[in-house]
Amino acid sequence: MSRRPSPSSSTAVPAARYLIGIDGGGTGTRARLVDSAGRRLGQGEAGPSALGQGVDQAWRNIRQAIDAAFLAAGLTPAAEADCALGLGLAGAEVATRRERFLASAPAYCKLALATDAATTLAGAHAGRPGTIVAVGTGTIGLARHADGRETSANGWGFPVGDEGSGAWLGLLAMQIAQQAFDGRSAAGALARAVWRTAGGSRAELLAWCEHAGQQRYAELAPLVFETEADDTQAAALLAAAAQAIEATVVAIDPRAELPLALCGSLGRRLEPYLDAATRARCVKPAGDAIDGALQLVREQIRQPLAPGIP
Amino acid sequence: MSRRPSPSSSTAVPAARYLIGIDGGGTGTRARLVDSAGRRLGQGEAGPSALGQGVDQAWRNIRQAIDAAFLAAGLTPAAEADCALGLGLAGAEVATRRERFLASAPAYCKLALATDAATTLAGAHAGRPGTIVAVGTGTIGLARHADGRETSANGWGFPVGDEGSGAWLGLLAMQIAQQAFDGRSAAGALARAVWRTAGGSRAELLAWCEHAGQQRYAELAPLVFETEADDTQAAALLAAAAQAIEATVVAIDPRAELPLALCGSLGRRLEPYLDAATRARCVKPAGDAIDGALQLVREQIRQPLAPGIP
Repeated sequence: MSRRPSPSSSTAVPAARYLIGIDGGGTGTRARLVDSAGRRLGQGEAGPSALGQGVDQAWRNIRQAIDAAFLAAGLTPAAEADCALGLGLAGAEVATRRERFLASAPAYCKLALATDAATTLAGAHAGRPGTIVAVGTGTIGLARHADGRETSANGWGFPVGDEGSGAWLGLLAMQIAQQAFDGRSAAGALARAVWRTAGGSRAELLAWCEHAGQQRYAELAPLVFETEADDTQAAALLAAAAQAIEATVVAIDPRAELPLALCGSLGRRLEPYLDAATRARCVKPAGDAIDGALQLVREQIRQPLAPGIP
Repeated sequence: MSRRPSPSSSTAVPAARYLIGIDGGGTGTRARLVDSAGRRLGQGEAGPSALGQGVDQAWRNIRQAIDAAFLAAGLTPAAEADCALGLGLAGAEVATRRERFLASAPAYCKLALATDAATTLAGAHAGRPGTIVAVGTGTIGLARHADGRETSANGWGFPVGDEGSGAWLGLLAMQIAQQAFDGRSAAGALARAVWRTAGGSRAELLAWCEHAGQQRYAELAPLVFETEADDTQAAALLAAAAQAIEATVVAIDPRAELPLALCGSLGRRLEPYLDAATRARCVKPAGDAIDGALQLVREQIRQPLAPGIP
C-alpha cells in the first residue's frame, strides 16, 4: 500500500484565497474568479490561449483575462501564490506543448490543466459519467464512463477532421460555391450566398480561399442554415453534420448508456437535426467549461500529492 | 483596320539564338533548351517555381534549371539577350504575382508567361482546340474551343478544391483512417495502410496532420490504389475521383465536341476508372507542358507587337 495523506491533511495543500477557472480556445480566453467558498466574484476575457498558437501568447492572454476578472470583481489582482488555477485549453492534448506551458507557469499555488474538451465534459455532467459532443469551429466527442474510462472521437482538427463543425460546413459550402461557379453543378441559394460573402469572380474566390483557415471557413457556416429552406444542397449539408455528430456519439458510447450534452454554439443549433433516439438522450449541460475547470482544480486541492512526490 | 506588321517583319523581333521552355510547379522546375530551328539540345531540372511559393525562389530555380539544360547540352550558359523563354508556371493566374514575377525578370530577349495548365493544354493538343484534365497533386480542367474561347473548371486549390487530385485522395484517406481509429467505422486495409505510414497512435496521427499540407497528403494517394482490391472504401474513393474528373470534363466541354487529354501522373492512372463515353474521347497528349511553353514563346516571336505598343 502506498502512503497517502488523508484528504483533510492540510500541510501538503497550499492555501488558495481564490480559485480561477479558465476556458481557452483559438478565438478567446474566459476567466472566472470564485472565492474559497465557491462564490462567484467576477469574470474577464482576453485573446486566444489555444496552445497550438504559442505558449507565450497563451500565458499572456490567460493573465490578462484573470486581471480582467479581478477588475470586474472590484478587486486588485491578487498575488499568484494566493490563486489556484484550473485550465481547460485547446491543444493541451499534445504532450510537448503541455510541458512547455507548465514549465513557463507563474508561481500559482496550484495548477490543473486539461483540454477544453475535458473541462467541457466535466462541467456538463458536474464530474459524473456522461458524454459531450462539442460543436463549434471544430467538433469533438468525449465520454466519461462509470468505470472512470474516457473515450474520444472526432476532433482531429482542420482541414482533415472535425466533421460536423462550423469550419467543416464552411469548407463544404465553399466547395459547392466553386462547383457552381465553374459549371460543375447548378447554382443554388447557398452558392450565391457564398459568392456574396467571398467574391463573385474566380480571382476573388481564389484570393479568399488562399487566406482562409479554420476560423474563416467557420464564418460561412451560418449561410448553410440561412439557405436551408431554399437549397437542397444546404439541407443535405446539415443532415450530413447531424450524421457526423451521431457517428461521434455512437463511437464514444456504443451501448448508449450515458446522458449526452451537446455543447458549443453549433451543437445546440444542430440538435433538432439529430435522429429521435439521439435527441432523446440529450440533457441540458449542468455547467460550462469554466465550471469544469474549477471542478478540476478543486479535485486536485482535495487530493494533494503524497509527500515526496513533487 | 489596325496597323499590324507582317509575320516576316524582322525589325520588331529581337534575335533568339536559343528557345527555352519551362514547366514550373510546387515540387520542381524543368527547362528544355532548343535551338532556333527547334532542335532539342538539352534539359535541366531544379527546385519549385510555383509563384505562390515566392517570386525570388521561382527565378532562382528557373535560372538554375536553365543552367542545367545548357550543361546537359554541353554548352556554356548563353547570355540572357540570346534566349527567348516560354514559361508555364503554377500560380500565374494571380495577377499581382504575375506582375511581380515579370517586373523582376532578367533581360531575356523574349518572355511569354502562362499557367502550367495553359502550357499543358497547348502542348497536349499542339495548340489546336481540345481539353485537358491535369491530375497530379492538384486537379484542373482547361478547354480551348474552336472559336478561341478558353474555359476552366476545378483547380481551386488545397484543401477546399482540386477534387480527384492526389492531395484530395490523401485527405479523404486520412479521414477514413481517423474514423476507423476512434471507432466511427470499421478499420479496412486503407486505414491500416495510413496508420503504418502516418502513425499508429492518436498523438502520432495528430502530429502528422498538424504538419501536413497539399504535398504530404498527396503522398498518401498511392495507398488508395494499393488497397483498392481489399477495401471497399478505397475503391469508392477512386470511383469518386473518376466522377470528379468526369464532372470537370462536362463543365469545360458541355457538348463533348473536343478531344480530351488526361495529363499528370494520376490522370493516366485514373483513366481506366472513367465511364466508357469519357474514355472514348481520350487521346494521347501530342506533347507535354514544356512543348506548350515553347509553342507559346514561338507564337509571340512570330507575332511581334505592333510598332509603338511596348
